This record gives sequence, C-alpha cells and structure tokens, in this order.
Amino acid sequence: MTQSELFTQIKQKQSYLCVGLDTDIQKIPAHLLGEADPIFAFNKQIIDATADCCVAYKLNIAFYESIGAKGWESLEKTLAYIPPTIFTIADAKRGDIGNTSALYAKAFFENMNFDSITVAPYMGRDSVTPFLQYKGKWVILLGLTSNEGSQDFQMLRLEDGKYLFEKVLETSQTWATDAQMMYVIGATHPEIFKKVREILPHHFLLVPGYGAQGGDLQTVSRLGMNSQCGLLVNSSRGIIFASNGRDFALTAQKEAQKIVEEMKICLQQSM
Amino acid sequence: MTQSELFTQIKQKQSYLCVGLDTDIQKIPAHLLGEADPIFAFNKQIIDATADCCVAYKLNIAFYESIGAKGWESLEKTLAYIPPTIFTIADAKRGDIGNTSALYAKAFFENMNFDSITVAPYMGRDSVTPFLQYKGKWVILLGLTSNEGSQDFQMLRLEDGKYLFEKVLETSQTWATDAQMMYVIGATHPEIFKKVREILPHHFLLVPGYGAQGGDLQTVSRLGMNSQCGLLVNSSRGIIFASNGRDFALTAQKEAQKIVEEMKICLQQSM
Repeated sequence: MTQSELFTQIKQKQSYLCVGLDTDIQKIPAHLLGEADPIFAFNKQIIDATADCCVAYKLNIAFYESIGAKGWESLEKTLAYIPPTIFTIADAKRGDIGNTSALYAKAFFENMNFDSITVAPYMGRDSVTPFLQYKGKWVILLGLTSNEGSQDFQMLRLEDGKYLFEKVLETSQTWATDAQMMYVIGATHPEIFKKVREILPHHFLLVPGYGAQGGDLQTVSRLGMNSQCGLLVNSSRGIIFASNGRDFALTAQKEAQKIVEEMKICLQQSM
Repeated sequence: MTQSELFTQIKQKQSYLCVGLDTDIQKIPAHLLGEADPIFAFNKQIIDATADCCVAYKLNIAFYESIGAKGWESLEKTLAYIPPTIFTIADAKRGDIGNTSALYAKAFFENMNFDSITVAPYMGRDSVTPFLQYKGKWVILLGLTSNEGSQDFQMLRLEDGKYLFEKVLETSQTWATDAQMMYVIGATHPEIFKKVREILPHHFLLVPGYGAQGGDLQTVSRLGMNSQCGLLVNSSRGIIFASNGRDFALTAQKEAQKIVEEMKICLQQSM
C-alpha cells in the first residue's frame, strides 16, 4: 500500500486508528474456546466489528508465536481475512545480520502478505535494508518506544548532545524514503512529537501506548500530525478486551468508535 | 543449564564451539529434499556428526520462521533431538514491551525448552526482564554484533565518551547475575574483547562472526577467555554447508574438528 492510498483511507474514514490484534488466548471470551481455532474466531469478529472505523491492523506476533505452529496458522488466516484496503502491520520487532533479516522479510512479506513490519534498529543499516527490497512494503523502525525501558538507552545523550533515538531517526532516514519507512514513537512521550517532526516532517509515525499505557491522543495529534495526517495511533487491549462476554465484538466496536470520534476532531483541528 | 555445568562440558570436550543451525532449505543437499521434513533430516545428521565436539547449538529462528508453520515443527523436532548435555540457543533477537516479551519467553522457554534466547537491548530493562523469570534459563543480550551495521549505533560515543554498547553492557549487567545473562560480542571486533572483559569479567560471551564473516579465533580467545573459559564461539555456514553432497555430515564433522583442534590450543594457552 502506498502513502497516498493510506492517506485516502484516513480521509474517507476520518480515522487514523490502528487496532492491535494482541489476541491473548487467556483473555478471549470463554464461549469461543470450543471453536476449532478460537484465536481466529475472535479476530474475525473483531475485524468484522472494527474494519469500518480503523485504517490499520497491527498483529503482535508474540501472541501467535507463543502457541507454536497452530498460532502461525491463526496468524495467516487472520491476515488473509483483513480487507485489502486496510494497512497491515507485523509487529515483530525483528532485525538481524543481512542474510537473516532477508529471511524474516521473506516470512512476513512473501509467505505472508503483510504491508509492513516493525524492526529494531540496534544492529544498524544492513539489518534493516533487506526489508526494504520489497516494493510497496514498509519498514516501521523503532524510534522511541512507549515502555519505561525506553529511558534506558533510547534517551541516552550522545557526545553531540542529541538523544540516541534522535540519531536513530536521522541516520536511518537516509536508508530509504518516507514512501518505505515509518517510525514507532510512543504516545507516552507526547512532548517529544515536536522534536520528532523537526527531524521527520513527512514520515508516518506508528504510535503505540495510547489507551492501556496512558498516552494522550490530543497532544500527540496536535504536535505529531502533518499535511498527510502522518499518524497511525494504535490501541490494542483497550479495544479488543473491553468486554470478555458474548458482546465482546460490539463493545470493541463502541470503544473504537469513541476513539474515532476524538480523532475526527483532531483531524479537523490540525489539517 | 548452569554456568558450571556448561564449564564442565567445555573441559570434557576441550571445546567452546557452538554450531549454528542456520538451516537454509535452498542450500541443503538435493538428496534430502525428498524427505518428509528435509530441514529436520539435515539437522539430525549434522547433530549426530558434531555433538561430540561442540558444547552448544544455536538455532537461527529466521530460517525456520521463513517457511511458516512447517518450519516451527522442524524447529521443535530439532530442539528435542539435541542431547540434553548440550546448551541450546534460540537466536531470535526478540525484545518488546513487558507483556509481549513475556509471551516470547513462553514460546522459547515453556513451549519449547531452549536453554537461552538472544535478546535485543534497544527497548531497555522491562523488555529483557520477562525472559529472566525462568530459573535455569539464560538471556543472551546483544552487545556488539558482528555485522557492518554494528558501527551505526552500537559504536556511537555517548556524552561521557563511552560507546553505546559499553553502556548497554554496564547497565544491563545490573538486571541479573552472570548466572543468567550472557552477551553477544562479534568476532569481527577482536580488539574490543579486552575492554569487554574489563566491564564483564565473569560473563559468558557468545561470539558470532567467526568463519564466514572473517573473525579471528586466536585473538578473540586470548583477550576474551576468563577462568571459566567464558566463550562460546559460533560457526554456522562454515560447518553445516561445507559440502552439499552426500558427504555433508562427515564434512561438517571434519570442519568442526578442525576448529576444536585450534580451540584446544587456545584453552591450554589461556587457562
């Protein structure tokens, strides 16, 4: 999917919501556990309920990998079920030496047809570029993550006074254009979005940490939005596990709609 | 497996060789492709041929993941086939927010019974500690990797003059003892082992980059060895793909034995 196709979806839906399918078998409603593939049964209903109001789905690979070969089947079926107009993210945080990253790229871009994958930057350029060999596919590089541990290394000051994460943004944006790279910037650092936009005026940012982790949508949107919106704000648990009863899909839909109402206002104010 | 159990194996075998099972379906001998599970058939013969002279096997998860659900089955079968006295490494380079890292830990330590997993440090403490909740299991944290891209961020100077990777070693060693943490330090930076040993005198180091990537065993061993050996030097392609004929296992054995001859000398010189 191209940048302009994504922006078209955002305008049509008046939404930049990404729904995180962190589908935890321990948390899905009990009545689904008798299904042949409970994870897929859950995801299918969540997708049916939310596809009209989100522009992206982020599949957290750990949740599928943690149940082995069967989990990979649920992952593949879920991905195939997502409408092709919706941007798909393999939240895998991979990254390894070149020949190995090339195989992860094959796993997520060829065997499966994800639009994008999240990649960790620590191993540098040759761990990232193999993912950039696929036309129309995206790397979403970790910049400043939403967790507490983002303070440990990402916020270290370098000899020139910059934070490490700033250097990661500056250096890595020379590896590909904003038509192939996005960045993860956590909603838990709303004040940082101004600085991020100085470094990356045009890139899309994937913003986790809204909802369960406590990020602030209005500040993030005000400081982070650009002329093509440039934001995909993710909510996972806050939507998909809003209810664990038989009404889970409807409740998820209502939660998603609530966020989109707020997003509509932010879009009108900022663009 | 404990540190002293690992050291006992090293003394018995006079070897600190780790064989990397980067089993690429494109590169395995043609006569195996008719097998029901060619990857496992290949690994089984490599393990039979090398188990007497190595102390660890490192399974590069990308090679299995890149063939989907079937790859996970080959991975599980391979792991189950490795003798229990040999240390096993899931070379997965995972690392995510706490609840997600906990699921990766479940995947590799509960569902599968790996002794250790490689973890990327960029997301900080709470992305690493979930892997440390398993008694007898190890985190092998990326310090300074063997690839060219290690220059991009790992070798950046911080405001106190230290390299980023040094800070990663210093900070992360407060998260657990040397009975639960090891570090990846690439053989392609032999001169750095002296500095690494100043920071981490007692930890085991997993050393990739020997062989195909050009690292120097003697310098690495001289500067990197401690009183418990403290090194696991990995070779993957140089051993397992030394021949792609019917003699592949025997040729792999000979290559492994050649390295172990050199290791014996290094052990005698350094310990």
